[in-house]
Amino acid sequence: MRWERERRAVERWLDKLLPGENVEPTTLHRAMRYSVFAGGKRLRPVLAIKAYRWAGGRSRRIYPVACALELIHTYSLIHDDLPAMDNDDLRRGKPTCHKAFGEAMAILAGDALHAFAFELLARSRRIEIVREVAAAIGTKGLVAGQVADMESEGKDITADYLRYIHENKTAALITASLRVGAMMADATTRELHSITGYGEAMGLAFQIVDDILDVKGETKKLGKPVGSDAELDKATYPKLYGVDGSYKIASELIANAKAALPTRRDNRFFYDLADFIIERAY
Amino acid sequence: MRWERERRAVERWLDKLLPGENVEPTTLHRAMRYSVFAGGKRLRPVLAIKAYRWAGGRSRRIYPVACALELIHTYSLIHDDLPAMDNDDLRRGKPTCHKAFGEAMAILAGDALHAFAFELLARSRRIEIVREVAAAIGTKGLVAGQVADMESEGKDITADYLRYIHENKTAALITASLRVGAMMADATTRELHSITGYGEAMGLAFQIVDDILDVKGETKKLGKPVGSDAELDKATYPKLYGVDGSYKIASELIANAKAALPTRRDNRFFYDLADFIIERAY
Repeated sequence: MRWERERRAVERWLDKLLPGENVEPTTLHRAMRYSVFAGGKRLRPVLAIKAYRWAGGRSRRIYPVACALELIHTYSLIHDDLPAMDNDDLRRGKPTCHKAFGEAMAILAGDALHAFAFELLARSRRIEIVREVAAAIGTKGLVAGQVADMESEGKDITADYLRYIHENKTAALITASLRVGAMMADATTRELHSITGYGEAMGLAFQIVDDILDVKGETKKLGKPVGSDAELDKATYPKLYGVDGSYKIASELIANAKAALPTRRDNRFFYDLADFIIERAY
Repeated sequence: MRWERERRAVERWLDKLLPGENVEPTTLHRAMRYSVFAGGKRLRPVLAIKAYRWAGGRSRRIYPVACALELIHTYSLIHDDLPAMDNDDLRRGKPTCHKAFGEAMAILAGDALHAFAFELLARSRRIEIVREVAAAIGTKGLVAGQVADMESEGKDITADYLRYIHENKTAALITASLRVGAMMADATTRELHSITGYGEAMGLAFQIVDDILDVKGETKKLGKPVGSDAELDKATYPKLYGVDGSYKIASELIANAKAALPTRRDNRFFYDLADFIIERAY
């Protein structure tokens, strides 16, 4: 699976689009850039670009939209790491935004990335792109997942509720990334349906594998303390189904994700990504 | 100056548009509604509606856009009140969101209102509306003002910098509210120019009067502790120019605001509002 070229293009575009560190207010721009360039796979923008190409898109207009998705992901991580939330000191092996810039600046850096993402989305000149992303990250998506995640701490929850958390916290923005990529390329309803099905199953599998890695991964490899979910007594798949049970569920989802794509298309990237996700769980 | 009818319409639309308290995630929706319905003049949505009518707009399509502006204002107040920021316990005489729902929920309620505002803006089906608001609330607007405000605490700052803070923290969203109202009515370039000039001057005067009231107002009337700016040693107009000097600057701005509007138009509401703002300072 190759996405190094897209990842590097995303890095370049992020650097070009984000206000410079010497532009006022400088501390704010430094905090924003600190978190955006703290590393990361750039999964969401790469998904948008790959879906755009997959649906026949060929221009560079996809990049500001793709970058907006990464900025939203970054904003959500900054707020999620805050003392009042998960209280994480490290993210990808570096001090979290509030550790490096203070809590107030971290809140504002998150807010500014959130707003700037919509400025970039507006450059698409497509209102349905704005609507798609806004719906995916609010009370029917990302924030709903974070609230449910938080409220599940220390509680016994049902399998349905756990699925609801993961679908909203992670799969919603992943699915939206694929969808806006396809929409930017004027995908057909059928194509949009396929890529949505792929995203929902793959996105959920992705979060389940994340849960598994939190239990069995190594601190160094992940760049964050292992077992932090257990420490907060969060609802996770391993907690409910065990590691083997979780692995089985994730494998089925990966199979479903691949099956959602139309045959007789070049789906190689999406197949490889699905395989890669489940292989990480080993 | 009459805006009671518009204010009540905004209340009804806010109630209709915001997810209900029984919709999952219920705590989140309760926290959002708690802050949105904590009172308030609804200045920004009313400005949008009045500018829309002033520029010839007649439909109800303005309401979701107007409500979005109020949601953004509310989100910024929620985050501004957080312990890491201004650490305010009261807002409009009621416990602040984080006092009532906890810090984590307040952060997320703010984030959700921010995202939902863009969902509502997208209903306008006008991308320039999205761009206008996004630009007004990020690092060239609202958030920039909050950062500068915070960084000015305990420091001696210049008159230019103080003006920069107030222009961004308050005037930017007020001006954007007027502009999106006019844009929704397909205002001419000249109309847009006039209403922008009015908004910039009136918005700055509004914040200067707020500074003055913080010094001389009564706690009960404002619903928040008086002198909280001085306690945080924030940069304010009275601190730099004294109360009388600040009043003089605000009066000049009010005159400029009125002069920015074209003659031979029904500007009554905007004139009255300008007069009302400066009269509050007495």
